[in-house]
Amino acid sequence: MNSIMSGCGAEHGLITVDQALDLILQHTQGLATESLELNGALNRYLAQEVYSAINLPLFSQSAVDGYAICAQSAIEPHSEFKLIGEIQAGHSSELQLKAGQAVRIFTGAKIPFGTTTVARQEMVNVLDSTRIAITEHLHANVDIRNVGEEISVGQLLAHKGQFLSVGAIASLSMAGIQNVEVFRYPQVAVVITGDEVASSIEDFAAGKIFDANAPLIQAWFQNAGQQVEVFHVADTEDAVKALIQELSDSHDVILTTGGVSVGDYDFIRPVALDLGFEQLFWKVKQKPGKPMFFAELTRPDRTRCYLLGLPGNPAAVYVGMQIYTSTLLRALQGQKQQPDWFSAVLTHELKMDSRERFLRMSASFDQGLLKVWSLSKQQSHMLSNLMQANCLVRIPAGAALSKGQIVQGLFIH
Amino acid sequence: MNSIMSGCGAEHGLITVDQALDLILQHTQGLATESLELNGALNRYLAQEVYSAINLPLFSQSAVDGYAICAQSAIEPHSEFKLIGEIQAGHSSELQLKAGQAVRIFTGAKIPFGTTTVARQEMVNVLDSTRIAITEHLHANVDIRNVGEEISVGQLLAHKGQFLSVGAIASLSMAGIQNVEVFRYPQVAVVITGDEVASSIEDFAAGKIFDANAPLIQAWFQNAGQQVEVFHVADTEDAVKALIQELSDSHDVILTTGGVSVGDYDFIRPVALDLGFEQLFWKVKQKPGKPMFFAELTRPDRTRCYLLGLPGNPAAVYVGMQIYTSTLLRALQGQKQQPDWFSAVLTHELKMDSRERFLRMSASFDQGLLKVWSLSKQQSHMLSNLMQANCLVRIPAGAALSKGQIVQGLFIH
Repeated sequence: MNSIMSGCGAEHGLITVDQALDLILQHTQGLATESLELNGALNRYLAQEVYSAINLPLFSQSAVDGYAICAQSAIEPHSEFKLIGEIQAGHSSELQLKAGQAVRIFTGAKIPFGTTTVARQEMVNVLDSTRIAITEHLHANVDIRNVGEEISVGQLLAHKGQFLSVGAIASLSMAGIQNVEVFRYPQVAVVITGDEVASSIEDFAAGKIFDANAPLIQAWFQNAGQQVEVFHVADTEDAVKALIQELSDSHDVILTTGGVSVGDYDFIRPVALDLGFEQLFWKVKQKPGKPMFFAELTRPDRTRCYLLGLPGNPAAVYVGMQIYTSTLLRALQGQKQQPDWFSAVLTHELKMDSRERFLRMSASFDQGLLKVWSLSKQQSHMLSNLMQANCLVRIPAGAALSKGQIVQGLFIH
Repeated sequence: MNSIMSGCGAEHGLITVDQALDLILQHTQGLATESLELNGALNRYLAQEVYSAINLPLFSQSAVDGYAICAQSAIEPHSEFKLIGEIQAGHSSELQLKAGQAVRIFTGAKIPFGTTTVARQEMVNVLDSTRIAITEHLHANVDIRNVGEEISVGQLLAHKGQFLSVGAIASLSMAGIQNVEVFRYPQVAVVITGDEVASSIEDFAAGKIFDANAPLIQAWFQNAGQQVEVFHVADTEDAVKALIQELSDSHDVILTTGGVSVGDYDFIRPVALDLGFEQLFWKVKQKPGKPMFFAELTRPDRTRCYLLGLPGNPAAVYVGMQIYTSTLLRALQGQKQQPDWFSAVLTHELKMDSRERFLRMSASFDQGLLKVWSLSKQQSHMLSNLMQANCLVRIPAGAALSKGQIVQGLFIH
């Protein structure tokens, strides 16, 4: 039999999810920038515009394997040309074409001075070592990639704030960019609280549980190509205080799990306030993750440490990472924007809840329409439906939803 | 002025994109499996079912900070109970409740024997150190997470083939799973051909271009959390042959760029055939990437090496990685399936082309409907629109498309 949950979301005065996200965006101060080699800048954000120092293509070149030709006019079938040499891709040549002449040329090779068009080899008959004949009609300027036709010297290649995806890295590489100025990636420390969490198999004892939160957060950062330090701390005020104080000197972000509710052993919030953190919010009208806490500390050098206190239930940690941590980390890299919500069609009814919910759902496309349906086992201490889920969907508070209603969500990977 | 391209897709006898993908899926032999620690198995695929050795929750526990209570019936407001102790999360207790008794308890703590319900602390008046009063109606079995309510001992946690996402890792961690049997990740070597490609800034000379392909492929694997070895090779038959021969002994996959077309310096295919590779296909009716080549070598020990020869144009490499390399790497890990295409609505007309096209597009959601529009600069030697593109869209061959038509695509990151 499932347990019954008391309606603990009926509390008044809690902020909404959008208000919480806005407070994160308002209060985050972008980090400094740094210069990186382009091949070390994957998944960062540009801190400066990038302009091209070269033309792309760098020189006019053949788009095919064939023959560069100099002809006064359009070429009729059976026209013959004198073959005066060969230009291989990547090799320079002093050859110049005069009317009636041709050179053997390959894809990407620089076309010689005097070229008026290129004949791909499928339309050429090689008559002998010095003469070729064209077998089809051929216009001027065919299969030539003209210098600068994609990008010209001085042109903007990428805006400030550009996300350096695989494609962006490739595109900048092609323009010869070697270094880029990007926002520094935040230094993040993770603090796992809760005496019930076994930090290792040796630590296991009655009343303890296997820890999902540290593996979850480590995998999340690993997926983003980043490393984090993870600390386990006992549920005593002194231990929590000593650790938070130390980390707040050296890190941009402290992520904590657990210890932010109203229990007698919930020390994260009182300790942070005691250490001089300013509370930006505590408690969000959401499920899971109501007691979420966000605070900032301004250090003597005016730099800041942010503390995002995620509730200890693993589903609250999961949602917190996908929605809030990602928003905070982007904002610290100069990108002040909400998560990139999709819109989708709900395939079934949903009962009312007094809090906004993030439900783990399955999404699939049907003729361009994204349809989502909820999975079972949504409680905050349950994670097993993440085997099937491919999205988190926001269900607004305060009203039942009917089939066909439009909802927002995020793909998860 | 843009160059005019000759209609080099009109060739007959080429296979389609779906046929090429099917040939990859048909011919790949899944790799061996290996046992990994769970925290090293992110983004792998399970090679065995995983069953739970424990119940989840592991024991019946409180869902809130409050009081575990033993009552014979539903509790009326003002009912009083005798407080006999406290149980903190993660601590074991020998306490047992009798009718009329209560213990202070915290979220996640094991409820004592005799508990009939839990009262969250917001509905409790502490009268003195030994007595509490409940302020609201309270049913039996409220705010208790029952042992095994999510997962019971012996239950299937994850199917063979399960992708180990962040959520899957977290979920298995919670069930105490320490090690998993997964498919080995393929050992991949990358060979960049083409004398026109400068492998470093020092290598730059007239007729050469900056290399986009090696950075593209390296970033692509880095994004997948994998490392690859990249080799540059000169356009001579001997150099290509020596390198491919060496790599085919030691690697599961050789990815090559360039050298697969019909030019005199295109040595990949003849060399591979010469070394005993069996051609599975050559030339796909697609744009970009027509001369794509796929072959397999069966080694004396019956294991295989696969060679995927991508054309040298960077857009062909990009498409090749997203569509074909990803499919091949998944299949080698036991997952024989096409890419996970979305469906979307085309927002404009598109002209006919004799080959299927992969166009770099921008996609956004509108009331649940995914709408895509094409970007400029789609030619195979151009990459700059990858700054804006967030998807690759498949445009079928042979017919013009009208606005509103449904197309398939893939999100790119």
